[in-house]
Amino acid sequence: MEQQLIFTNMVGGAIDTLVESLGNPDCIVLTDTNTDQFVLPILVNDSKSVAQARRIVVKSGDTNKTLDELTAVWKRLAEHEATRRTLIINVGGGVVTDLGGFAAATFKRGLRCINVPTTLLAAVDASIGGKTGINFNGVKNLVGSFTEPVATIISTVYFNTLPQQEILSGYAEMLKHALLEDEKTLGDVLKFSPVYPSFNSEALLPVIRESIITKQRICETDLKEAGIRKALNLGHTIGHAFEALAMKRQSPIPHGYAVAWGTVCALVLSNMLLGFPSETLHSFSDFVRTNFGVHALSCSDYPELLGLMRQDKKNATPDTISFTLLESVGHPRIDCAVTDDKIKAALDIYRDLSGQ
Amino acid sequence: MEQQLIFTNMVGGAIDTLVESLGNPDCIVLTDTNTDQFVLPILVNDSKSVAQARRIVVKSGDTNKTLDELTAVWKRLAEHEATRRTLIINVGGGVVTDLGGFAAATFKRGLRCINVPTTLLAAVDASIGGKTGINFNGVKNLVGSFTEPVATIISTVYFNTLPQQEILSGYAEMLKHALLEDEKTLGDVLKFSPVYPSFNSEALLPVIRESIITKQRICETDLKEAGIRKALNLGHTIGHAFEALAMKRQSPIPHGYAVAWGTVCALVLSNMLLGFPSETLHSFSDFVRTNFGVHALSCSDYPELLGLMRQDKKNATPDTISFTLLESVGHPRIDCAVTDDKIKAALDIYRDLSGQ
Repeated sequence: MEQQLIFTNMVGGAIDTLVESLGNPDCIVLTDTNTDQFVLPILVNDSKSVAQARRIVVKSGDTNKTLDELTAVWKRLAEHEATRRTLIINVGGGVVTDLGGFAAATFKRGLRCINVPTTLLAAVDASIGGKTGINFNGVKNLVGSFTEPVATIISTVYFNTLPQQEILSGYAEMLKHALLEDEKTLGDVLKFSPVYPSFNSEALLPVIRESIITKQRICETDLKEAGIRKALNLGHTIGHAFEALAMKRQSPIPHGYAVAWGTVCALVLSNMLLGFPSETLHSFSDFVRTNFGVHALSCSDYPELLGLMRQDKKNATPDTISFTLLESVGHPRIDCAVTDDKIKAALDIYRDLSGQ
Repeated sequence: MEQQLIFTNMVGGAIDTLVESLGNPDCIVLTDTNTDQFVLPILVNDSKSVAQARRIVVKSGDTNKTLDELTAVWKRLAEHEATRRTLIINVGGGVVTDLGGFAAATFKRGLRCINVPTTLLAAVDASIGGKTGINFNGVKNLVGSFTEPVATIISTVYFNTLPQQEILSGYAEMLKHALLEDEKTLGDVLKFSPVYPSFNSEALLPVIRESIITKQRICETDLKEAGIRKALNLGHTIGHAFEALAMKRQSPIPHGYAVAWGTVCALVLSNMLLGFPSETLHSFSDFVRTNFGVHALSCSDYPELLGLMRQDKKNATPDTISFTLLESVGHPRIDCAVTDDKIKAALDIYRDLSGQ
């Protein structure tokens, strides 16, 4: 069953319409301490269903996407006597949609839920594609499921007050989606400014719509990540290595920034190996440099970066590492085996492109 | 994807063939302390895959189907570096297939697993239909998922040494499945003796095959219990009330026995309300009385029994309780609303039939 996507800035009304169309089930709203304070007071005014719903509040922040919080949510669902008819409404960022989605997927073997993402990253990434879960044993998302919500309500009203870094983190995923879609979508995304003060959340709604539809299309084709969904790894192989090395050196960089820089490197490789157009590579690289800045690198970092890329054993042989690359915009090729020398050459070119 | 059912008493060979057909993945065998001691030593001799597999052992017994044991299994899977290619082989009773199935369904958002049930009840019930889970917060199976294994290997070699009570507990479910299938299957099940010394596990294999195919057919049509799968509740509404009242009075009765007696009562109601044939009711009732004995009841128990039946709120109104009944063998009707008076009358008739 495909999840319903609703794009609107009238969130309260959309929730009520949806709840009615689902047969007016009992609702439980799941929030985190932030959205409970800043978003719920407004939603309670705008939505009868939210006003009448019982509430479960989890601690905000990725460090709380834990088994302990999940256990607390299961207990509260039991106290609220949730049944298979109950509808869970997740209102929050990725922590809420991941943890709330997993709680819903597993309580009484599955309650229905809807997602109301309140961050750009959750809207374009976490809440689409059915990935739910918690961090466990020090590993991100080690426990979870592929379970889609019945609907996701996408709105940009919550993004006006997001910190710059949060907006850019989400925007990096939108850049990636546009590369997987087509020239027109990429053009729209590269024209838009994700940086304050010119950032305008109202104008973002049509752009985000394209982006989410791309992700949804890819995920629906391959919910369980057996094939084409790997296209969404574009930029992540090198991006994760940047992120991990920065973390190791105790000067962490935001995930989205790492992905943006990693995507530039993936386009360099695509240009070298698959003839991806140079002109598009340059306009993309310029956009990333202008908005995300530059990731400083030196040759001496290369061995460590290659070691980190090699950690995902299923994607590496002793001599090559597997990438998602692009033949052209909208034409990904997954499982491209690339030699260490080619990767080093691409990192050299990234440094040139970014003026290092 | 439909799970594969393999009926054989050459379990080791069947596992090896299956593992090969799945592309020779790394295997992890999940057992409980009992099957690890009594079943694994034999399987290790008979199966290369089992001999080479790493092992995870959980504590045996339904009281250990807990979040703590599940957490321990997740941790061991992480230590064993299980990936999405890893195959989990659950060898044990319902605790192992429920808990192991849920661990597999949720680790890294889903590993493949196969079930090798070692008790009759697990073979005909727990391991078929995709229900996985743990007990939580004092409630049975409160947390879990609907996730089918890729295959279940059904063998009767492990049943020779089961206690009488365990065999009858599983056999009650087989009686129920036969009632949902057809006259021929019912005839086969009523001809077979589930009681030592005449019980012959070898001869059980063809009978169990019919039974499991019935359950599989019903579950495949309705994996998530939205409709016809409720047919499998036949006998359980009154059966659960018998079980709960006995528990409350501190003289517990085995679940399977309660189901067998509850099924007789459901057939009485079916006869009263839907014209289920009297002759079949009597031969079924005789079989249950001979093999399971009689559940002693008095009129003074009725109010408490009705109260217990009413506890599942979604299935009850102030005046009626919802049942799965049969028009005839093989023709269930779900969601039959029955008045308290009719239920009392059926309990009276049950007492007559059992000579009380």
